[in-house]
Amino acid sequence: MTSSPESSPVDSNALAAAGPLAGAEILCVGTELLLGNIVNGNARWIAEQLASLGVPHYRQEVVGDNRERLIAAVRAAAGRCRLLITTGGLGPTPDDLTTEAIAAAFATPLREWPEVWADIQAKASARGRLLAASNRRQALLPVGAELLPNPTGTAPGMIWSPDPAGFDGELQPGFTVLTFPGVPSEMQAMWLATAAPWLRRSGLAQGVYASRLLRFWGVAESSLAEQVADLLELQNPTVAPYAGAGEVKLRLTARAATEAAAEALLEPIELELRSRTGRLCYGADQDSLASVVLELLRRRGETLAVAESCTGGGLGAAITAVVGASEVFLGGVIAYANSLKQTLLGVPAELLESHGAVSDPVALAMAEGVRRLSGADWGIALTGIAGPTGASADKPVGLVHIAVAGPDGSASQPVRFGSTRGRSWIQTLSAGEALNRLRLRLED
Amino acid sequence: MTSSPESSPVDSNALAAAGPLAGAEILCVGTELLLGNIVNGNARWIAEQLASLGVPHYRQEVVGDNRERLIAAVRAAAGRCRLLITTGGLGPTPDDLTTEAIAAAFATPLREWPEVWADIQAKASARGRLLAASNRRQALLPVGAELLPNPTGTAPGMIWSPDPAGFDGELQPGFTVLTFPGVPSEMQAMWLATAAPWLRRSGLAQGVYASRLLRFWGVAESSLAEQVADLLELQNPTVAPYAGAGEVKLRLTARAATEAAAEALLEPIELELRSRTGRLCYGADQDSLASVVLELLRRRGETLAVAESCTGGGLGAAITAVVGASEVFLGGVIAYANSLKQTLLGVPAELLESHGAVSDPVALAMAEGVRRLSGADWGIALTGIAGPTGASADKPVGLVHIAVAGPDGSASQPVRFGSTRGRSWIQTLSAGEALNRLRLRLED
Repeated sequence: MTSSPESSPVDSNALAAAGPLAGAEILCVGTELLLGNIVNGNARWIAEQLASLGVPHYRQEVVGDNRERLIAAVRAAAGRCRLLITTGGLGPTPDDLTTEAIAAAFATPLREWPEVWADIQAKASARGRLLAASNRRQALLPVGAELLPNPTGTAPGMIWSPDPAGFDGELQPGFTVLTFPGVPSEMQAMWLATAAPWLRRSGLAQGVYASRLLRFWGVAESSLAEQVADLLELQNPTVAPYAGAGEVKLRLTARAATEAAAEALLEPIELELRSRTGRLCYGADQDSLASVVLELLRRRGETLAVAESCTGGGLGAAITAVVGASEVFLGGVIAYANSLKQTLLGVPAELLESHGAVSDPVALAMAEGVRRLSGADWGIALTGIAGPTGASADKPVGLVHIAVAGPDGSASQPVRFGSTRGRSWIQTLSAGEALNRLRLRLED
Repeated sequence: MTSSPESSPVDSNALAAAGPLAGAEILCVGTELLLGNIVNGNARWIAEQLASLGVPHYRQEVVGDNRERLIAAVRAAAGRCRLLITTGGLGPTPDDLTTEAIAAAFATPLREWPEVWADIQAKASARGRLLAASNRRQALLPVGAELLPNPTGTAPGMIWSPDPAGFDGELQPGFTVLTFPGVPSEMQAMWLATAAPWLRRSGLAQGVYASRLLRFWGVAESSLAEQVADLLELQNPTVAPYAGAGEVKLRLTARAATEAAAEALLEPIELELRSRTGRLCYGADQDSLASVVLELLRRRGETLAVAESCTGGGLGAAITAVVGASEVFLGGVIAYANSLKQTLLGVPAELLESHGAVSDPVALAMAEGVRRLSGADWGIALTGIAGPTGASADKPVGLVHIAVAGPDGSASQPVRFGSTRGRSWIQTLSAGEALNRLRLRLED
């Protein structure tokens, strides 16, 4: 290829000079997205890249392989945004319409790039593949567009600022479109090699973003939001709450001229949030309850074992999802049947008879049993009703007894998760609650 | 709740009578989507549901938690589509704006549903949680809207056909909006309980779709696709392959005037696929490897126990994810540390020393040990290198030994999953492979 965006007639500085910023939009093209055959991972990936580059991004759209709807979507976007990023529809088949539709949206003819056609032929022959005549369509770009090279696949993309003179609709000053294929690996390689440097030079970035995710356990999203309501009103950094499976998260995002300045904006707000919420906040960013508990135990040089009934192995699985868990975690017993609670964990038959398997005395005996059996410093036990069957009037679905046994004694308490969210939710929350109980003990 | 969509003033037949079909659009609301924090799984799930219901779907959009952009998106959609489905922004926090913005788009006031507020309070008290005043916002819906009940969470959605008389923009005849929360489990439960039956009655469907998902284990997507290449070319039913975590799926979709006719189109293709692929196909639709194995054991009146090292409880968790697992599954041992392999499972120290923990002899001893210990008819054991640490030259990351011990003897074999996809992938695939080995033994 002789041309590259480095020598492009599309001057990226022109974008910066062209008036107030209207941000970026993503337009993903593909009937497979509308049929729900695949999840839109491209939109997520590009959105994350835009955020890290500090390019404001206000909208994503998906349309199918349909010429008219594609043209309408491109024309509407041209009136709203400064940068339109498309994925998909660059292939050789008749339903690959993106380049053609974008050219048509601006009544601009296509021209063939001979060096692109040569490159497509060379790549095909290197892979021992025969080319269909339709592949030649992939060498066509609108007149005035620059190449966005595709180092790994055949279809290149383009960087194009259509001529406003020829457009009969509303057009944002400096409107530019970048096109990418739908294959994630090709799109990502093209983005990193050409689009990201181009975007850094474009002046579209409003500074640099830094973000932090604070993670909470044992509090409802609404209560947490009320506790920090004034901070949710902040403009920079922003603080936004999200609910997950049992946990609640607060995302802090700051924008500044440099990364250091953005981090400096985050810091006091993070400190304020942590001081207001105290031990409700269990960690940040990539932390999990399991990783936090394992790290606390590792520092103390102590070990852990589990005795699981209603979670059936889910607590152990959450713990061993963490790299290096074997330094701390010995294992344990899945005592799903009562017979194993007795034979393996030594839970007395009379406890099971008088209190039932789902009770504090049995949870305590399980935790102490697995601690004794394994020689671990700490034992956690769970016994509960994951449902939908197995409940009784006084032991409803969602009731789980969780015990922690350690060097300084044992304690068990019930927790009620309710039945409405189902079995898998109860199992996940039970494992999280058990880890959080141990975290609180260890932090005492 | 006293009202239900069954008695809704929004007559779903009105949609069908209201002129040419303009299909459905999905509007997902959430700044976390624009920041690329999460992938838009809700759009994919709903798109798949619309396809299976035969409702045409031409566009998806994502906007952030911004009142003006939300209003603009709703107003534009009202001019294009018959059915707008929104997700997200129904929570109690100030950045949850969806209901309010939709009402504002049609200049309609909100009114409180006392029974919704009572339901929110009841659910909170069942979980022992205090409600914030902001939760009361979740009981507000635009005047004229019907409730879309949320059986599992607090925020209900709505079914609303805004009054065209009060709207100053372009409006598709019969335009109706359905709102859902962003939490996938709540959205899906609401869809299945209320929205799907409503859509079936709505007349929006173009014909009826029937579909079947065939599930395969132990074959690569490309090999399976090659084996059935001619069937992938079919137009009705269509056959499309998907790869999941270790499993491969073929989705068959047929369209016809009636459900019976669509099913009749599916049947011969399903039979042909099953006959070509033999035992590679382990189940269909909602089946999992665990549910298939549990059903095989239940029919034989036999029981199962597990001994897990590298999966740390993940196999037990996969088994106990199935409702009614306790009929068959007794439990087992998480023997993560070698000490527990010895003390609990009775693996001889000399086996561990001479062969190493990751070996067929140790896997066999674990499987036989847990079978003896628990009294189960069948024992499965896994020991391997989940990585990224712990590997050696002859025992690389991804090497897992899996043993099955049963009434007719024991067998162990290694499997190599490779290191490139990481720890969690190796753990998930190990559990699946172990279940598949038992399935093949039971089907013999």
